[in-house]
Amino acid sequence: MRTTGSIPVLERFSLGTWSPPHLRPVLYLVGLMLLALSAAMLLPAAADLVVRNPDWRAFLLGSGITFASGAGLTYLTRCRLSGGLTLRQAFVLTPLAWTAIALFGALPLYISDYAQLRDSFTNAFFEAMSGLTTTGSTVIVGLDAAPPGILLWRGLLQWLGGIGIVGVAIAILPALGVGGMQLFRTESSDRSEKVMPRVREIAAAIGLVYLGLTIICGALYWLAGMTPFEALVHGLTTLSTGGFSTSDNSMGNFGPAAQWIGTVFMLAGGIPFVFYVRLLRGERDSLRNTQVRAYLGFLLAMSLGLAVWLLLSGRYGLEEAARLAAFSVVSVVTTTGYATTDYSLWGNVAVGIFFGLTFVGGCTGSTSGGIKIFRFEVVLKVLRSYLRQLIYPKGIFRRMYAGRLLPEDVIASIVVFFAFFFASYSALTILLMALDLDFLTSASAAVTALANVGPGLGPTIGPAGNFAAIPDAAKWLLAFGMLLGRLELFTVLVLFVPQFWRG
Amino acid sequence: MRTTGSIPVLERFSLGTWSPPHLRPVLYLVGLMLLALSAAMLLPAAADLVVRNPDWRAFLLGSGITFASGAGLTYLTRCRLSGGLTLRQAFVLTPLAWTAIALFGALPLYISDYAQLRDSFTNAFFEAMSGLTTTGSTVIVGLDAAPPGILLWRGLLQWLGGIGIVGVAIAILPALGVGGMQLFRTESSDRSEKVMPRVREIAAAIGLVYLGLTIICGALYWLAGMTPFEALVHGLTTLSTGGFSTSDNSMGNFGPAAQWIGTVFMLAGGIPFVFYVRLLRGERDSLRNTQVRAYLGFLLAMSLGLAVWLLLSGRYGLEEAARLAAFSVVSVVTTTGYATTDYSLWGNVAVGIFFGLTFVGGCTGSTSGGIKIFRFEVVLKVLRSYLRQLIYPKGIFRRMYAGRLLPEDVIASIVVFFAFFFASYSALTILLMALDLDFLTSASAAVTALANVGPGLGPTIGPAGNFAAIPDAAKWLLAFGMLLGRLELFTVLVLFVPQFWRG
Repeated sequence: MRTTGSIPVLERFSLGTWSPPHLRPVLYLVGLMLLALSAAMLLPAAADLVVRNPDWRAFLLGSGITFASGAGLTYLTRCRLSGGLTLRQAFVLTPLAWTAIALFGALPLYISDYAQLRDSFTNAFFEAMSGLTTTGSTVIVGLDAAPPGILLWRGLLQWLGGIGIVGVAIAILPALGVGGMQLFRTESSDRSEKVMPRVREIAAAIGLVYLGLTIICGALYWLAGMTPFEALVHGLTTLSTGGFSTSDNSMGNFGPAAQWIGTVFMLAGGIPFVFYVRLLRGERDSLRNTQVRAYLGFLLAMSLGLAVWLLLSGRYGLEEAARLAAFSVVSVVTTTGYATTDYSLWGNVAVGIFFGLTFVGGCTGSTSGGIKIFRFEVVLKVLRSYLRQLIYPKGIFRRMYAGRLLPEDVIASIVVFFAFFFASYSALTILLMALDLDFLTSASAAVTALANVGPGLGPTIGPAGNFAAIPDAAKWLLAFGMLLGRLELFTVLVLFVPQFWRG
Repeated sequence: MRTTGSIPVLERFSLGTWSPPHLRPVLYLVGLMLLALSAAMLLPAAADLVVRNPDWRAFLLGSGITFASGAGLTYLTRCRLSGGLTLRQAFVLTPLAWTAIALFGALPLYISDYAQLRDSFTNAFFEAMSGLTTTGSTVIVGLDAAPPGILLWRGLLQWLGGIGIVGVAIAILPALGVGGMQLFRTESSDRSEKVMPRVREIAAAIGLVYLGLTIICGALYWLAGMTPFEALVHGLTTLSTGGFSTSDNSMGNFGPAAQWIGTVFMLAGGIPFVFYVRLLRGERDSLRNTQVRAYLGFLLAMSLGLAVWLLLSGRYGLEEAARLAAFSVVSVVTTTGYATTDYSLWGNVAVGIFFGLTFVGGCTGSTSGGIKIFRFEVVLKVLRSYLRQLIYPKGIFRRMYAGRLLPEDVIASIVVFFAFFFASYSALTILLMALDLDFLTSASAAVTALANVGPGLGPTIGPAGNFAAIPDAAKWLLAFGMLLGRLELFTVLVLFVPQFWRG
């Protein structure tokens, strides 16, 4: 097993045998994360205390319980992490950590005084999982009147979830070889060995870039006319491609300037964060990054096409057509899920196009979800060489990606990813229909959850609606779908394979 | 290029260069097919003459025009076929022949006195293409009162299309290496070399089995209470998994006995016809045919599950629940598209399940369409070895199919098939939505055309509706979708690659 870079404890992956005591370092790490989470809960407590909203007690109590649990867990399982994690430990860690954080993150919402969440643990958990996975589907009606603590906590969960998935995508998934992510194994480790003296440094640099861009985004929002609090929350949920807002009208509540800023920073959130670090270090090859170019080209083409169509349809003037088109396309493709306008009113064809865009996703190593651009690129490469092979059966066509030969195992694992994505999507759609949701609601809810986008389509869960009205069972199914999609399916699914748990 | 068997003119595939004069043998073969088609048109002419319906003139005139065109074409392009076809010629032949036959097959419908088809070439062509591709979507309202010539012609088109696709799947697709069909290259050629003295013999044996089963099916329908004419038409459209009926109520117009007979012969139509030939010759290994077992197992499991659910829901008694469940599942999975009852009335979950089943399809080498069972089997094999590899990164897992190692190029071409199936499906759905059809109608029409099933879902094109009401542009799109799906996508798509036409 080669070195994988980026997160110190994962530096020395080893294959390792499996037996229950080996859960120890996994639980220890989860404990550490809970301690960090309990600290984060103090921020919304402070926000509520400022406006004298009684929820400050809920956040303080939640923080206390989370701290006690985290402290207890780390104490009981204390161990040295210098030995690194085995592959199996990494497999268990990822979904366990995300589930634990969502559960504890739901706690202050559930014990708050805010009726819509207090009355239902289902709602509180749905909202927390939707936040942590940066999905952005909400069950809250009347966000504009919601207390600041809850709004801030939703934003913080998305911000933490955003940087969390960047870490997972860089440090864990390539090593596990999940869904073609082994493509980025060599990229991040080989190159970082040349350029970066230590892996800790990449992690720190990415963290700084994430924080810096968040601050710039929030400051620009403020300059564009948001209140400082609105600017803070939207700053937290833009770069993380989360999409939670402080208003039921989402970004439609703010002016054109704020919407353009949102477009730029959502776009930025869909780019791998390693890309920025390389750019800042003046590496030239980062500008030739294949997936970033494909991502920007795709967004430009789709936005332009939609803008021209909107302009020709006579609904909007030039600036408004360009703004609404770019905002909506970028919001869905980066899996943010902010809305400025209800695009389903643009007609059936817009519904069809946005439904299709929900699957796409941004770049890997970014905060965005979905199938992701590089997987489509690989499938297109296979398609191209295949068509050539059909025409010239004796020719030899090599499939290259980013200047390297595409290994067969990458192709196979991307196939499997697509197959499982569509299988999960179909199963989730049918289960939601079994709960008596209509076809458009079920199909769009299934993909919006799996791709971590946020809003669905149709009158109930469309860009103008929300998830409050759907049955509790559907909320749990969708929360599971969000987790599955966020962790690229296989990190979750492998836990259901009996052989995984055998020696 | 190895010998591929089954159709004499294709015996000696050679790579061959490409230049326009090489279209000659292709056009010659199309001419021969038109001559056969003109002969087939005499049957509906006779049927109309018997009941003194004036359409006999339309069929006679159509036959004359088709004969003249076929004779002219064969005369102008006359050549010896003993040299075989090149790969490129085979690529051009397949879609060209199907389009030409659909166009000439639409002719008598268009020049008939039957108002619904006479008034619109779009309707006539849609109906002919739907017949020839064994899709079974219809634009005719009031089938029960339609003249016998038209009903018989629809049935004959499906019967000819059914045996046609069996020939294409055995003789042409494996040699072209389309969508993983090269898996069946070795199977049909190697084994046939051992068992069959000459390829002509397989072709003759398959033709006899097809004819024999059709006659048995028709006779049983007649014994079960259909009129001889109804039994004839349904005999022609059952084994061919076509699904055209003589009644707007489809098979719901007939009793339980006819419905059970229909279930058995639709099932038979979804099995490779080579399988029957081998069975008749007493070959033991045919009983272990991987795809046939998977196909039967899948149908049994789905039918049983649905029957139990229908029984528990209290809507039906034991026999009726079993019959409706088996009939509906077999009708959709074999891509026949007969209906006994409007299953969309069974609730949203049934709609979801039948929507999913529309994609599946039967075995390759049968008359059924869809993605086909063996492609799902291969994806499952890849998934299984992939999950094991995730758990045991140093293990070596071989992917076997039907006792042989699965070559990487087969996996890649199945991936590409899935990718293109879903891409075509998405594009077709969005184009239909652009014509202002709703989401369920568009999505289900797109897949029912591509998979050659027949009925869609929703009030317009559902099992109780038909395609008369949708816009003309949608009918042309769907007719193209039927052709694309029927010929396994790539035989059509490769013609749109510029390199194909270069030297």
